Amino acid sequence: MSETDEAGTSRRAFLGAGLAAGGAVATAGFARAQTADPLITEVQDWASSFGDAVDATPYGMPIHYESHVVRRNVEWLTESAVSSINFTPIHALEGTITPQGCAFERHHSGAIELSKQDYRLMINGLVERPLVFTYEDLTRFPRTITTAFCECAANGGMEWGGAQLEGCQFTQGMIHNMEYTGVPLRLLLEEAGVKPEGKWIYAEGADASSNGRSMPLEKALDDVLVAFFANGEALRKEHGYPVRLVVPGFEGNMWVKWLRRIGVYDQAVESREETSKYTDLMKDGRARKWTWVMDAKSVITSPSPQAPIRHGKGPLVITGLAWSGNGKIDRVDVSLDGGVSWQPARLTGDVKSKALTRFHLDIDWDGSEMYLQSRAIDETGYVQPTKDQLREIRGLNNVYHNNGIQTWWVRADGEVENVEVA
Amino acid sequence: MSETDEAGTSRRAFLGAGLAAGGAVATAGFARAQTADPLITEVQDWASSFGDAVDATPYGMPIHYESHVVRRNVEWLTESAVSSINFTPIHALEGTITPQGCAFERHHSGAIELSKQDYRLMINGLVERPLVFTYEDLTRFPRTITTAFCECAANGGMEWGGAQLEGCQFTQGMIHNMEYTGVPLRLLLEEAGVKPEGKWIYAEGADASSNGRSMPLEKALDDVLVAFFANGEALRKEHGYPVRLVVPGFEGNMWVKWLRRIGVYDQAVESREETSKYTDLMKDGRARKWTWVMDAKSVITSPSPQAPIRHGKGPLVITGLAWSGNGKIDRVDVSLDGGVSWQPARLTGDVKSKALTRFHLDIDWDGSEMYLQSRAIDETGYVQPTKDQLREIRGLNNVYHNNGIQTWWVRADGEVENVEVA
Repeated sequence: MSETDEAGTSRRAFLGAGLAAGGAVATAGFARAQTADPLITEVQDWASSFGDAVDATPYGMPIHYESHVVRRNVEWLTESAVSSINFTPIHALEGTITPQGCAFERHHSGAIELSKQDYRLMINGLVERPLVFTYEDLTRFPRTITTAFCECAANGGMEWGGAQLEGCQFTQGMIHNMEYTGVPLRLLLEEAGVKPEGKWIYAEGADASSNGRSMPLEKALDDVLVAFFANGEALRKEHGYPVRLVVPGFEGNMWVKWLRRIGVYDQAVESREETSKYTDLMKDGRARKWTWVMDAKSVITSPSPQAPIRHGKGPLVITGLAWSGNGKIDRVDVSLDGGVSWQPARLTGDVKSKALTRFHLDIDWDGSEMYLQSRAIDETGYVQPTKDQLREIRGLNNVYHNNGIQTWWVRADGEVENVEVA
Repeated sequence: MSETDEAGTSRRAFLGAGLAAGGAVATAGFARAQTADPLITEVQDWASSFGDAVDATPYGMPIHYESHVVRRNVEWLTESAVSSINFTPIHALEGTITPQGCAFERHHSGAIELSKQDYRLMINGLVERPLVFTYEDLTRFPRTITTAFCECAANGGMEWGGAQLEGCQFTQGMIHNMEYTGVPLRLLLEEAGVKPEGKWIYAEGADASSNGRSMPLEKALDDVLVAFFANGEALRKEHGYPVRLVVPGFEGNMWVKWLRRIGVYDQAVESREETSKYTDLMKDGRARKWTWVMDAKSVITSPSPQAPIRHGKGPLVITGLAWSGNGKIDRVDVSLDGGVSWQPARLTGDVKSKALTRFHLDIDWDGSEMYLQSRAIDETGYVQPTKDQLREIRGLNNVYHNNGIQTWWVRADGEVENVEVA
C-alpha cells in the first residue's frame, strides 16, 4: 500500500476497522503505484532468468541481505574472547525458535572440537555401578523432546546499575530457545543406581574450564536431558557437540556443554562457578547461592534500539518474548507510557512451559514518543518486577538474575533508546 | 557402557528392567574401561587448551563431522538442476523442527535473489481495491505463528512402481517442518475487499516459472500465511526470501515462494502446475485434480537405508515421523514383521495439527532380520494405507500423493534396504 506513505494518511484503515474509509485512498494509491513503479510495470531480471540450482545449497546459509542478523559479542565484558558471550540478535528474530547458527552461547575456555568417536560420559560417585558411556551407548536409550529456553544468569546484568548498554541484543540477548532431543538424565542415573546417600549431582564439561555445576538430585531426576540434537540436527560445536546438558528453567551456566562427567554426591561441590560466580550479591554484602531458577521475564524485541521505527505513524507491530523458569507464561502486559497504564498483549503461537513465548500488540501509533515496557505474569501468579523493586532488596552491585522490566524510549522520529523511568 | 561391546552381552539391562542382573557386568566393564581407555585415563588436548573464541561464530554452521547431513538432489529426476529438488536428510535428524539450512525445497526455475526493497505483492482481480504492498507494508499487519509441514505432492512418488530409490532421504525426504511467522492472508484479502463473485485465489511467484496455483477462497481465508520468517529468522533465499505462502496441510507446490501476486477470480485458473502437473493419474487413464490435501503418512527415519544399525543386537531406538494434512496424528503403529503384527509407538514431544510428529519405539533387538513399517492414524480416524491398497484404485503410473506404508528390510548385519512386502 505504497500510497499511504506518499499521501501521509493514517494506515489505520488496513488494520480492519476502517476499510470503507481507507478504500478510496488505497485504490487511488494502487493506481499510482501501478503506473509509476517499475517493479510492477516492468519485467525484472529475476522474473526472466534462472536462479540458483539445487546443488548451490547442500546446506543453506542466510541470504547476504541478512548479514547483520548475527551473534555479536562485547569485547570489554569478559577478560578474553575464549571466555565470552555470543548474544542472540533477538531484535531481528520472530516466532519462538532460535536458529542454532545465531543462538546465544557462552563458553569459559573456548568452544572445543570433540568427535563422537572420542566422546565419553562417566557417571560416578555415590552410585552402585560407575559407568562410562560412549556416544553410541547414549543413542540406544529412550529419547525425549523438550523445547526450552536457555538464559544466562547474567542476562540483563548491566541493568543493575542503570541502562548501560544500547541494543536489545546486548541488553537481553543472552538467551535462546531450541527444541532439544536427548536422553532423560534420570534413565542414566537409574542405570548407574544412585545410592540412598546421593543427594546432589555435579556435572562437568570436557573443555579446559570444565564449568562444573552442582544441582539437587530431584532436579536431575525430573526434566534434565542429556541432549544431542537441537532444532532437529546435531548440536553445533559451540553448543556442546556432541552432548550437552539441558536443564529447563535453570540458569544457562548449568547447561553444561561437552558433558563428560556426572558425579553423584551427598552434598554440593561448591565449585568456582557456583560460589565466586553465579551467586547474587545482596545489598548488605552477603551473597545468595543456589538461585538457579530463572524468574518470569519479558522484553520487547521490536521496536527496540536496534530495531527503530522507519515507517512513520500508523499501524505498528509491537512484539517481544516472555518466559518463566517456573512454568508457562499466563499473560504479558504492554505499556506505552512507562508503566502508567497497561494493556494485554496477544500470546502468539504455542505457550510452552519453560520455553519462550512470543507476544504481539498491534497499535495505531500517533507518532508521539513512547516509553515501551512489557511485564510477564506466569502461571504461578508471579509478576515481573521493576528494576527498582529488585534493587530495593538486592542493591546495585549484583550481576545476576535481573529480570526487571525493560524500558525502551521511542522518540517521535522512530529512534529507540534504552532508558529507565523513575 | 563400553564393556558390553567387548563382552558381547545383551544391553537389555540398561533399559531399566534388568538393572540387578546387568549391574555386575556393567561395573566390571566400567573398571576395564577406566584402566584401558586413554580417553578416560589421560588428559586430552581439548581439556587442556583453549577452543574457539566467540568471534569465530557470528553465524555458526554444523561442525565438519556432520558434513554428510546435507540436502541432496537426484540428477536424473528432473530435466535440469534449476527445476530440481533438495531432499531433507531426514534419516539423520531428530525432533520435529527441520533446520532451514537442510530443509526440503524445490524450485522450478532456480532460487532467485530478491531484496526486501525490490519486493512487491499485488492483490488484484475480483477485489474492491487492487493493492500493491511493499515488504514494509506487510510487516505492519498483525502476525501469527504456525508450525506446519511442507511436503511435495511427489514425495514417495517413485514408490508407485515399486521400491526404486535407496535411502530414506531420497524416498521420503521431500518434506520439512518449520515454525513460520507471517500475516494471515485473510487480513490482506479483507484489506483488498473480495467481491461476492470471487471464489478462488491464484498465487504467483516472482521467479521466471511463476509456479502459479489456484486454491479455493475458503482455504485462503482459513489458515494460509503470507510468511516472512521460518524457525525464527528471515526465510532463506531458497525458501522464498523475502516472502512465501504457507498453506498448512496442502501439497508443497502451493506454498508459492517469492510471492508476487494474489489474484481473486470466480473460478480456478487451471495453470500448467495444476493440470499437466500435480494431478493424479488414475488406473483408467483419467486424472484427478484438486487433490491438495496431504493424507496421513509416516516413515521410519532410523534405522533406514542411510542409517543402518552399527551397534549389534540389544537395545535399539526406532524413530520416525508422522503427519497429516487433515489435523493431528492420533497414533502411530510400528511393525517389525512387515505388517503381520503391530505395536503402538510413543508420540514424543508436541503433537500439532498439520505438523510433523516424532515417534519412537524402543526395542530389544535379537539380531534377526526385520521388515520395519510404520502406520499413521490421524484424528479423523484415517489409517495410512499400504501401497497396494493405493495401487488398486490409482494404478501404477501416478506420480503424486503416495502415502503408502514404507518397508525397510533390516538385515541381520544391520544394513537396511528399501523393499516391498507382498
